[in-house]
Amino acid sequence: MNTFRNSSRRHFIRTTAIAGAGVLLANSLGSQSAFASVREGNVQAKGLASQDKSGTLTSWSFERRPLGDNDVLIDIKFCGICHSDIHQMRGHWSPQKYPQVPGHEIAGIVAAVGKNVTKFKVGDRAGVGCMVNSCLECPSCLGGEENHCDRSKTVFTYGSTEESSPTGITQGGYASNIVVRDHFVVRIPDHIELKHAAPLLCAGITTYSPLMQADISKGDKVGVAGIGGLGHMAIMLAASKGAEVHAFTTSPSKVDDIKGFGAKEVIVVDDLSKLKAHHGSLDYMISTIPYDYDVAAYAMALKPRREFTQVGMPIQGKLTINNFLMIRNRVNFNGSLIGGMAETQAVVNYCADNKLFPQIDVIKADAVNNAWDKVVNKEARYRYVIDASTI
Amino acid sequence: MNTFRNSSRRHFIRTTAIAGAGVLLANSLGSQSAFASVREGNVQAKGLASQDKSGTLTSWSFERRPLGDNDVLIDIKFCGICHSDIHQMRGHWSPQKYPQVPGHEIAGIVAAVGKNVTKFKVGDRAGVGCMVNSCLECPSCLGGEENHCDRSKTVFTYGSTEESSPTGITQGGYASNIVVRDHFVVRIPDHIELKHAAPLLCAGITTYSPLMQADISKGDKVGVAGIGGLGHMAIMLAASKGAEVHAFTTSPSKVDDIKGFGAKEVIVVDDLSKLKAHHGSLDYMISTIPYDYDVAAYAMALKPRREFTQVGMPIQGKLTINNFLMIRNRVNFNGSLIGGMAETQAVVNYCADNKLFPQIDVIKADAVNNAWDKVVNKEARYRYVIDASTI
Repeated sequence: MNTFRNSSRRHFIRTTAIAGAGVLLANSLGSQSAFASVREGNVQAKGLASQDKSGTLTSWSFERRPLGDNDVLIDIKFCGICHSDIHQMRGHWSPQKYPQVPGHEIAGIVAAVGKNVTKFKVGDRAGVGCMVNSCLECPSCLGGEENHCDRSKTVFTYGSTEESSPTGITQGGYASNIVVRDHFVVRIPDHIELKHAAPLLCAGITTYSPLMQADISKGDKVGVAGIGGLGHMAIMLAASKGAEVHAFTTSPSKVDDIKGFGAKEVIVVDDLSKLKAHHGSLDYMISTIPYDYDVAAYAMALKPRREFTQVGMPIQGKLTINNFLMIRNRVNFNGSLIGGMAETQAVVNYCADNKLFPQIDVIKADAVNNAWDKVVNKEARYRYVIDASTI
Repeated sequence: MNTFRNSSRRHFIRTTAIAGAGVLLANSLGSQSAFASVREGNVQAKGLASQDKSGTLTSWSFERRPLGDNDVLIDIKFCGICHSDIHQMRGHWSPQKYPQVPGHEIAGIVAAVGKNVTKFKVGDRAGVGCMVNSCLECPSCLGGEENHCDRSKTVFTYGSTEESSPTGITQGGYASNIVVRDHFVVRIPDHIELKHAAPLLCAGITTYSPLMQADISKGDKVGVAGIGGLGHMAIMLAASKGAEVHAFTTSPSKVDDIKGFGAKEVIVVDDLSKLKAHHGSLDYMISTIPYDYDVAAYAMALKPRREFTQVGMPIQGKLTINNFLMIRNRVNFNGSLIGGMAETQAVVNYCADNKLFPQIDVIKADAVNNAWDKVVNKEARYRYVIDASTI
């Protein structure tokens, strides 16, 4: 139960009633105590939290900060499961503070807004991705790269130190609600379901941003390595932009699906020798593989001087590169970190407009630990999305 | 003693005497047996060879192939010591065949030429670098990238399988002479000493090629990491092209020298934290570090989207990359393998014309094992060059 959800709506009704704004209203007016819970007190929330680095998720009631003047309170409807959630909760990247609620593919409905917020109103369809704050003043933030805040003030959606959070760290979207600064909330158009929009907030933007940066042209041969949540979006996005997509997977059982996503060719890499036939053939390549692997062997598939972008993040961030291959292939290896807020809005709009919907499996809260195991075992087809009403 | 050297000259004298070519002659006419040793029999050579992966070099008499119609026989005068020699002889990159003579920074005098050779004549000053053959017909070879032969026919100067070699593999330049296909021999201009030209054949071209590829402009901030044989050439070359060079070294004792090479700033990286002050400051960076190290920490010194080129080759080619840093710095990491023959000629000419002479320490053959230890211990200042007359 999300006891706060109703009270937040009541608060909104009260304040909008005073202001006379023409926004949607449904419930009866709330009490003064409900009002205070939004304006002055912490927001009550319920989530699925990891208590330690085992990563096992259990139900957890916690508090979020009160709604600030620039904040949006979102009733979460769906949250996607990203492999990053698993890595981070299990301490694969760095030691974590617990309890911690993962989740950064969040879609829901605006339940309240702070007094300075003009971009959203209660009832709006809204999404939150991998970050929830930054300085918003530096050249990178002003240039639409809040994910690369020059002052290192980017606050990620869960596990980042945040003074305003009652738990001391940000808590993510496997939860009933979230309080987020308005700049970090995107609009979700009416012509895409919330459950389909959720994965776009990470899987979508993380692949869209480097694909746009690479400026792929119609007919370009684009390689996608690792066909899970991110990879299947990369295929759809690249194919939609006119690229000829060559997909590299270790799962023979995914071949038909992958062709359905728009790939022209699927290479089952059950052995690295399978890559040889593709040496020097591609114009651009993106890898979503979230474990250490033979990066340079895959990069051999590119033409010289082209780009290979790594978006999957391995344990400890550690990738081993065979420089003998790199001096031969002359490929530019780079990494990419999600994308900025304008670009996040753009990918959500683009997918809605072009009907690029992630292939999802909606699950209840009690199935989440099992789903995580399946993600690790490459059994996800292709994104699990939690129905937040079951949390 | 190089017993062949004189006989090769005798051969030349004999053949040129017959042809009446107006080239320099010094010795008396040779015997028929000497003639046969060039035209029909193997060329006798003496070298410093590693007998096993200990890498210890000892004197070794061996044979090279007879002079072919397109070959040049060079009496070696000097050969530089490259860290690659050490890595390869010690089996750090791959298992090797022994005995093997290292050395790919070769400068000498043409002692004989095959009947089709028009580019060189006896007495010419000549250099040989890291490769001695390729297909010469594929687009890469025809395009001046013989180091990237599309048919994988690039033959490296030592340790490459070569049918025509009596030892089954190519043998390098720590030797009295070498037989090389003419296309892979560069001219050494008169206005540079052979001992200074030798290191340009690897240290020079390996840094020059990526610097030219990066198209650095006057005033660009160029970083050079690892200031040994390659690094000190990279500084001189980049500074000569108008770049503002920032050099990164772990050896405080090199600081004054490095400024003398033309660096504007020297950063002594006794701790990786020293790199922080330089984050996001450089336009291009080249690393000559020949061991695994924190590549991404150095790459942080670049502005976003710029290039970081690795030319040093670590043990097993293995580089560990922290992808957390790569997604932040958005740098393009790439490798570079020496350079093509036209570019090799260009760097030799450029260094001669601009008086960019490597800082060398000429040693005798009996000092070579000690010199190798010093190279590994970062005590070289900055290139050892073997006086081949002492072999």
